[in-house]
Amino acid sequence: MKSHRKELWFNTKSRREYINITDDVAEVVRESGVQQGLVLVNAMHITASVYINDAESGLIQDYDDWLERIAPFNPSGDPSSGGYNHNRTGEDNADAHMKRQVMGREVVVAITDGRFDFGPWEQIYYAEFDGRRRKRVLVKVIGE
Amino acid sequence: MKSHRKELWFNTKSRREYINITDDVAEVVRESGVQQGLVLVNAMHITASVYINDAESGLIQDYDDWLERIAPFNPSGDPSSGGYNHNRTGEDNADAHMKRQVMGREVVVAITDGRFDFGPWEQIYYAEFDGRRRKRVLVKVIGE
Amino acid sequence: MKSHRKELWFNTKSRREYINITDDVAEVVRESGVQQGLVLVNAMHITASVYINDAESGLIQDYDDWLERIAPFNPSGDPSSGGYNHNRTGEDNADAHMKRQVMGREVVVAITDGRFDFGPWEQIYYAEFDGRRRKRVLVKVIGE
Repeated sequence: MKSHRKELWFNTKSRREYINITDDVAEVVRESGVQQGLVLVNAMHITASVYINDAESGLIQDYDDWLERIAPFNPSGDPSSGGYNHNRTGEDNADAHMKRQVMGREVVVAITDGRFDFGPWEQIYYAEFDGRRRKRVLVKVIGE
Repeated sequence: MKSHRKELWFNTKSRREYINITDDVAEVVRESGVQQGLVLVNAMHITASVYINDAESGLIQDYDDWLERIAPFNPSGDPSSGGYNHNRTGEDNADAHMKRQVMGREVVVAITDGRFDFGPWEQIYYAEFDGRRRKRVLVKVIGE
Repeated sequence: MKSHRKELWFNTKSRREYINITDDVAEVVRESGVQQGLVLVNAMHITASVYINDAESGLIQDYDDWLERIAPFNPSGDPSSGGYNHNRTGEDNADAHMKRQVMGREVVVAITDGRFDFGPWEQIYYAEFDGRRRKRVLVKVIGE
């Protein structure tokens, strides 16, 4: 069995950002030399997601609006006014912990003949919900 | 290490449909000959999900109603009237991209002694949110 | 390829509970002797989740409140009064099936040099949404 790991680093300009990392992950798969296997791609931070969906700017805006409705940003630590208990710790990112659960921590992608075994529109995204600082994604390949 | 892959194809009559694929995936696991390993089951399209939950028709109706409340179907491209930016591309399926994120793209199931290592009620479902066309699921088995 | 499996059992006092299982899963990884690989950790029941996020009590309260807003507990089988079709089967836990989908069934974690390949704050949680009975989590390790 072969294995290979690599970290991808990000430091977004905006608090929330959606970055297509498909080519970066494909490069790690190539480096691994794995022909048949699985690649795990996960956010290493708990206020960010890795997900697979469309590279379409309108949809990305829709996701951002929808997540903000489901779990609105609110720096307050007072739930009775729309804030979050978590923000009493000095953080202001409780909403980001919610958004990340909706979009997920990780994806697992099949590798067949040395490449992603993908449908026609699958693209891997890093979704940042509390950026403007250095954060990273783990890519772990196993197989043969 | 052994590996095996197979695609399952669907063409649902309704826009949204929930199909129990447990037996189909079990058959792929048997074909693989893998005794100890993992099986990845993922939608290859970005408006459909693979998830594990109950084979109970009332619950499936509840899921469908609930997802429609969280991300209502609306073919409009105008967010100010409940539509989605994505639908300006000529698509009408932005809601399906949201529903799929809630239910997830994939499941990973353990294989022990050649069979699913499942709890008592676990069943694998394909959830279609924008059907009436040919779409598919990937089953990838790795192990020994 | 090595593989190893173990079940973790729970019987929570409350209907909903959030339990940090990071150390328990780490022990299973150590037992496996796997140096490079993947560990799958999944709820074996369909009204519970395994997820990765923060060990912070305020955030856990926020998750609980948020999930209760997204899918409120209601033992009724009448959707027109806020109940769920599923509860006509004699169950009262339809809300738990919804909450589990938001938080997810499983996590897959990379093993590197015999240990979790984790970011600084990642902790593995078992989230129980319909407890007060014996339920379990599967830990399956594969690798070398």
